[in-house]
Amino acid sequence: MEAFFELKKPDEVFEIIDRLEPLEEETVPLEESLGRVLSRDLLAPEDLPGFFRSTMDGYAVQAKGTFGATENLPALFEMAGEVSMGRNAPIIVGEGEAVKIPTGGMLPEGADGVVMIEYCSLLDGKTIEISKAISPLENIIQPGDDFKVGAAFLQKGQRLRPQDMGVAAGLGFSHIPVFRIPKVAIISTGDEIVQVGKKPLLGQVRDINRYTLGAFCREMGAEPLPMGICRDDFQMLKDMVQEGAERADSVWVSGGSSVGTRDLTLKVFETLPGFELLVHGISISPGKPTILGKCGARTFVGLPGHVASALVVAQVFMSRVILRLRGEDHFRAYAFREVEAELSQNVESANGREDYLRVRLTQEKGRNFAKPVFGKSGLISTLVDADGLVKIDMNTEGLYQGQVVKVMLFRQGGLS
Amino acid sequence: MEAFFELKKPDEVFEIIDRLEPLEEETVPLEESLGRVLSRDLLAPEDLPGFFRSTMDGYAVQAKGTFGATENLPALFEMAGEVSMGRNAPIIVGEGEAVKIPTGGMLPEGADGVVMIEYCSLLDGKTIEISKAISPLENIIQPGDDFKVGAAFLQKGQRLRPQDMGVAAGLGFSHIPVFRIPKVAIISTGDEIVQVGKKPLLGQVRDINRYTLGAFCREMGAEPLPMGICRDDFQMLKDMVQEGAERADSVWVSGGSSVGTRDLTLKVFETLPGFELLVHGISISPGKPTILGKCGARTFVGLPGHVASALVVAQVFMSRVILRLRGEDHFRAYAFREVEAELSQNVESANGREDYLRVRLTQEKGRNFAKPVFGKSGLISTLVDADGLVKIDMNTEGLYQGQVVKVMLFRQGGLS
Repeated sequence: MEAFFELKKPDEVFEIIDRLEPLEEETVPLEESLGRVLSRDLLAPEDLPGFFRSTMDGYAVQAKGTFGATENLPALFEMAGEVSMGRNAPIIVGEGEAVKIPTGGMLPEGADGVVMIEYCSLLDGKTIEISKAISPLENIIQPGDDFKVGAAFLQKGQRLRPQDMGVAAGLGFSHIPVFRIPKVAIISTGDEIVQVGKKPLLGQVRDINRYTLGAFCREMGAEPLPMGICRDDFQMLKDMVQEGAERADSVWVSGGSSVGTRDLTLKVFETLPGFELLVHGISISPGKPTILGKCGARTFVGLPGHVASALVVAQVFMSRVILRLRGEDHFRAYAFREVEAELSQNVESANGREDYLRVRLTQEKGRNFAKPVFGKSGLISTLVDADGLVKIDMNTEGLYQGQVVKVMLFRQGGLS
Repeated sequence: MEAFFELKKPDEVFEIIDRLEPLEEETVPLEESLGRVLSRDLLAPEDLPGFFRSTMDGYAVQAKGTFGATENLPALFEMAGEVSMGRNAPIIVGEGEAVKIPTGGMLPEGADGVVMIEYCSLLDGKTIEISKAISPLENIIQPGDDFKVGAAFLQKGQRLRPQDMGVAAGLGFSHIPVFRIPKVAIISTGDEIVQVGKKPLLGQVRDINRYTLGAFCREMGAEPLPMGICRDDFQMLKDMVQEGAERADSVWVSGGSSVGTRDLTLKVFETLPGFELLVHGISISPGKPTILGKCGARTFVGLPGHVASALVVAQVFMSRVILRLRGEDHFRAYAFREVEAELSQNVESANGREDYLRVRLTQEKGRNFAKPVFGKSGLISTLVDADGLVKIDMNTEGLYQGQVVKVMLFRQGGLS
């Protein structure tokens, strides 16, 4: 009765997902580029900084004139002027001359270093006593110290953080080339589903997946298009899937936890001209009855109706689908998003499938502990209580109390 | 010359920040509540789920009728009907009767368990052979298994994740009470600063902090209001700070890396009626010349002009200011956002101040390594290369190669 499943292993599914292509390029204002993914390397059109800058309040001098200067034997310099912020210093510093300079000020020609103001005293209006030797280039930033002209200062596939936007600003990029954000059409199916605003009759439940899957997309940097609720009806689902395909880059149908309705989603997908079935069942728990297919560049996904199962599958597999469509480099997106913790109790697991255990994290005396949150996959409270997932490998029969496990953290509402 | 600093220790600054009050409450549609912070506990107005549901495709029966049933000695039941999804089953299941039920279907009255369909065979149109005993309540979810009526299913101060929105949906909350999002006015000061669209003349640099600090606010769940560039001019800065105070909950002035301009920010803050100076200098590096004050509920912040220093201070302290204004529970927001890594080289540090070292993370054979990114704080490339910060405690003279350190991860563009 489960014969229609040709279960794929998780790694096979990842390989299939990794063959998906990023969406096309578009250009956005720098101010709106946070979290967007670069569609090409950005090259520095000029040196950053563009000139020699002082890193201190002090006096710009020729360093060699300070050699040997100490508190007991200070060197004497002649005050030759002052640098104003934002101005090209109109002074050429000669031997034995000192020019006052603020932090960030442009080093005047002739000078090759800055003495911190703490080591300088103005004896009269004209003479400065310097009590510390500096070496050439001391206390200055040189042109190109941040990035040299022509350098690829940001790479294709990189997700923009505040500091990345900052360097783009510093180099004069007011617009940024990025991959388009994927749109995901979300359809909840089931004769028992009613809208959140309605009071369910006996046997009915409210539409949860619209919100969990939609918010999940947003967290991952995709734009959800909630399509509403669909009855367990072939024609209605076909119409909604087709509308979704017209409006979105990926169409996600959740529902069909019973065998009959599960068939419905695949049957509808198979009516799409050129539909290619990529995955029909994954050897994981929860989430086995997952469907992934495509028509051209569009992906079609069938997710379990159980909310916890659907969200685990989203977390593990659909996050990667979105990353691929966003053109995002995987490594930084996934690496280091895990924490290690000691498991608080033994957990059994069936051989031959990957289990995703929901866990809650606690901290005690600097040690992290992961406490399994058990519960049927029809319950959502298991996910509300949990901070992340622990993968139990296919060839493992379980995990032991005290064992150090890696916890894939849930995202925190798209913020941190 | 640094006499005007009364340096506070980082912990003292955190204590001061923790006395700030959250902003007022507002109500948002559930669909827009991702990442928002609950302003009150949410109580379940009803049981979730609201009725006995099957977790399997199978037959609803009285469990006691299956006791003793095995493959060799199956129990016989009479087919008494079928449950439709979303409908109150109109059947009362009597002794020896079985009713077909889909996953998620409502358990008919009289039944107290579900036998998986794999263990049932329909002999003729009327008789069902059951080859496995079930215990009462097997394969069903009971009313309130997720949350019982009256339970605080989400807590005040909690940031909403997809699953949290899901349970709110399940319980019929189409609108959510949350704390208002803080607005942060951002002012970049300095005679040397020009807009990103302009070609800087010699001695000028483009406005970077507008973008780094603005995007940082967005990542933290605040709304940035970029106010533009201010000259090093008392009256102009005063006007801009006052306008910022009218439009925003917090006013951040960055710039003034030289002593003269640093004074300017504080002088302007002190003209605000009722201004209370809370922090004037913090014993950290980078970021010492940080100012924090308030007028009533409004906070006023002076940040270093150096972009890397400003962003480190934002990361360490201003993130906490925003969390407080958002009414957010600290523990989950900060805990577990760190990864452990082995330091790749020795690092010296001055006693008596906290140092924040920028590091880049790499992974090799499952081990994490943190490589320090050195550079003057006027450079932004140090932050672009880095994945996070390592704190070097005040009373430490440095860290050693191979030492395991905790890396506070930078946020990833507000997404994960």
